[in-house]
Amino acid sequence: MKPYYAVIFTSVKKVDDPAYDHMARSMTNLAQLQSGYMGHESAREKIGITVSYWESLEAISMWKEQIDHQLAQQLGKEQWYEWYKVRICKVEREYEYKS
Amino acid sequence: MKPYYAVIFTSVKKVDDPAYDHMARSMTNLAQLQSGYMGHESAREKIGITVSYWESLEAISMWKEQIDHQLAQQLGKEQWYEWYKVRICKVEREYEYKS
Repeated sequence: MKPYYAVIFTSVKKVDDPAYDHMARSMTNLAQLQSGYMGHESAREKIGITVSYWESLEAISMWKEQIDHQLAQQLGKEQWYEWYKVRICKVEREYEYKS
Repeated sequence: MKPYYAVIFTSVKKVDDPAYDHMARSMTNLAQLQSGYMGHESAREKIGITVSYWESLEAISMWKEQIDHQLAQQLGKEQWYEWYKVRICKVEREYEYKS
């Protein structure tokens, strides 16, 4: 397995807001265009968890600094998130099951 | 930050089954008693994502081998999961926001 990285983004929103859903979709589409993007998985109940996968730490830094993403992060703090936490992780091992 | 580990468990279930929910709750309770357990976060929509956090790779191995958890893994494959993937990761950096 070639080493790669996971960004675990966990969040609690203040309120439901269609503008948030729109922004989240835009950011998902934009991330897919970034160099080094490998995929993502997302689910929300009480807490939202989005894990995105990247080829390198450099790719993660570039996505964090991407200009439209910067704006989204700012709006996220001002309007949508009660709390969030970001963890940047190196994937050391993986295994999979298919029925 | 003291280094620690994340286990990202993503899954798709075959069917909804109250027995699954019961088992999932039991395993959550049991994990909390394991040495080296630090916490977990979980959400399910189309895909389920559970991330658990651990002090060491040894703690993760011991949880994987725990006897009741072994049984749950077996039942999971036989009865509940269409697909799952496990990624074992080292958390290298983290940051948090509170409104």
